[in-house]
Amino acid sequence: MAEGVIGSFARERERLNELVMHYADLTVKRFYGLDSQAYRDGALSRKTKELLGLVASLVLRCDDCVKYHIVQCEGQGASAAELVEALAVGLVVGGSITIPHLRRAVEAWDELQSASRQD
Amino acid sequence: MAEGVIGSFARERERLNELVMHYADLTVKRFYGLDSQAYRDGALSRKTKELLGLVASLVLRCDDCVKYHIVQCEGQGASAAELVEALAVGLVVGGSITIPHLRRAVEAWDELQSASRQD
Amino acid sequence: MAEGVIGSFARERERLNELVMHYADLTVKRFYGLDSQAYRDGALSRKTKELLGLVASLVLRCDDCVKYHIVQCEGQGASAAELVEALAVGLVVGGSITIPHLRRAVEAWDELQSASRQD
Amino acid sequence: MAEGVIGSFARERERLNELVMHYADLTVKRFYGLDSQAYRDGALSRKTKELLGLVASLVLRCDDCVKYHIVQCEGQGASAAELVEALAVGLVVGGSITIPHLRRAVEAWDELQSASRQD
Amino acid sequence: MAEGVIGSFARERERLNELVMHYADLTVKRFYGLDSQAYRDGALSRKTKELLGLVASLVLRCDDCVKYHIVQCEGQGASAAELVEALAVGLVVGGSITIPHLRRAVEAWDELQSASRQD
Amino acid sequence: MAEGVIGSFARERERLNELVMHYADLTVKRFYGLDSQAYRDGALSRKTKELLGLVASLVLRCDDCVKYHIVQCEGQGASAAELVEALAVGLVVGGSITIPHLRRAVEAWDELQSASRQD
Repeated sequence: MAEGVIGSFARERERLNELVMHYADLTVKRFYGLDSQAYRDGALSRKTKELLGLVASLVLRCDDCVKYHIVQCEGQGASAAELVEALAVGLVVGGSITIPHLRRAVEAWDELQSASRQD
Repeated sequence: MAEGVIGSFARERERLNELVMHYADLTVKRFYGLDSQAYRDGALSRKTKELLGLVASLVLRCDDCVKYHIVQCEGQGASAAELVEALAVGLVVGGSITIPHLRRAVEAWDELQSASRQD
Repeated sequence: MAEGVIGSFARERERLNELVMHYADLTVKRFYGLDSQAYRDGALSRKTKELLGLVASLVLRCDDCVKYHIVQCEGQGASAAELVEALAVGLVVGGSITIPHLRRAVEAWDELQSASRQD
Repeated sequence: MAEGVIGSFARERERLNELVMHYADLTVKRFYGLDSQAYRDGALSRKTKELLGLVASLVLRCDDCVKYHIVQCEGQGASAAELVEALAVGLVVGGSITIPHLRRAVEAWDELQSASRQD
Repeated sequence: MAEGVIGSFARERERLNELVMHYADLTVKRFYGLDSQAYRDGALSRKTKELLGLVASLVLRCDDCVKYHIVQCEGQGASAAELVEALAVGLVVGGSITIPHLRRAVEAWDELQSASRQD
Repeated sequence: MAEGVIGSFARERERLNELVMHYADLTVKRFYGLDSQAYRDGALSRKTKELLGLVASLVLRCDDCVKYHIVQCEGQGASAAELVEALAVGLVVGGSITIPHLRRAVEAWDELQSASRQD
């Protein structure tokens, strides 16, 4: 079966994160640690935090970040309706300039859903 | 008692929204309607959606939008811990450039809390 | 003849917009409607509005949006001189960070012009 | 009569531009020259170019730039309907995050209209 | 003597940073620590890093961040010529939309220079 | 040997810049001239200016601009430690949203280093 957008993204991300760690100074390493910490369960659930990260990524229009948080939202059990409502907030806040990223967000989500159905 | 940052913001916002409606064409009017609709209760609660709007506003660094969503989050019963965790996601996603806006977000939140305690 | 950047963009855009509509809630659907309405002839001609959309897309640095408005500007009869002057405003407002997008804007425009000449 | 938002903006802008020129190197000076050149009449009228500059400024959310182009649009004879339609394109492209800037754009426009009526 | 833009900014920044620390969770606190660490002397001097922070702040158009780094650059012994050349890089990269922030950057720098001359 | 990310970027950049010059008006041409001038040796060395351009490009999240400045930094003799410290400032200022671009920056740098070692 052909590798989808999620699979190729995940492999490339892992390969390049290793390269970043090879060159990283302490500031970069600590930033990576902080980036994990921010999404841990707390007063807000990790699912809610991943939705926050998703909307932030959509309005800042970063496809890789959107894809990453789509995978995390799916892993935390977000439903399609929850995902779309979060993306809709991002669309209204960020405007039509986010639409190309919204399209690719939905494509990634749809690919994850198809993969689940095939399991 | 001196009017705080929230009160003067709310009055100015209302005054200027009336002026916008005076000049608005149909597109502007429909956008305002859509902006209300996006935050209604659905698969995600209105509180969660206001937190999404808050984080989107923080990473896009719009003080007025941040203030608006701080007021809405407070009205929807968000706790200080929930608010800070949402802002922390925004800070990590958006970087130190968001710090001046984070400062003013916390100032607005603190003012709302002080007002509640005085009731 | 090999499909150019415009053709492959248009096909992908259509495929993914259908997927968006499959998942869309009412907010997303209404946003799509509003996005069409904003560019209709009014006090400003549709051509001028497409140029406005083009410059907005350039300074916000969205390649897909730039390509979309380039096609619309061409369809509304914008000349090469008009297009370049609009892009020049965007370049001065948005700075050298827009140059990679300016390059791809001109590539899309050139492809459309070549296609017209071959008709 | 109290000085409005336009008057105080124009005075402050002039004062600080003189200070910039005092410190400016050749790059900064040439940039200022280029910034004037981009809006001259050409294939597109200066009025259209000022509308392009206005929409670019709105989606990039710069109040001072918005105010500057509002004054120029008014000076070039743009009508209220033309102005609002241009702002509506910016609102749809840039999303609700532009609304605080849209409000202040309309305030500046309204002040200019009131001043004209009093002449 | 009237307090200048630098003095009032520094006082307000300190007051609000204390408020942030009052509400901060661990993520926010660690981010503040990282923000200090990134500018320490290393392979690049602290002066160069402050110039990097200044240009990053200018192109992202954050007045408070620009003011902060202007003060740090001055404290690290940057000359007026160095400062202007750094700002000129930011102006060319970020475009005319940065000009209002450039103006206020130069105002803050000029105020610091005047203060030095009066010592 | 397979062409790397740097080689294909450089070829594409040159091809499209020629196309831009074919269509360019005077404003666009003068902007290109200004863009070269801003990085010349002055009070700050060209190496420092390229690092400034790199950090500005990272926080504005433009892959092509990042790649361009990575090549220039390498040509001006920047060390790996200097490069990483500059990127770390950009990461802290710009937040986790810059990480995908940081990854590709490091990939480009690593490719240049491998090429040097093979000479």
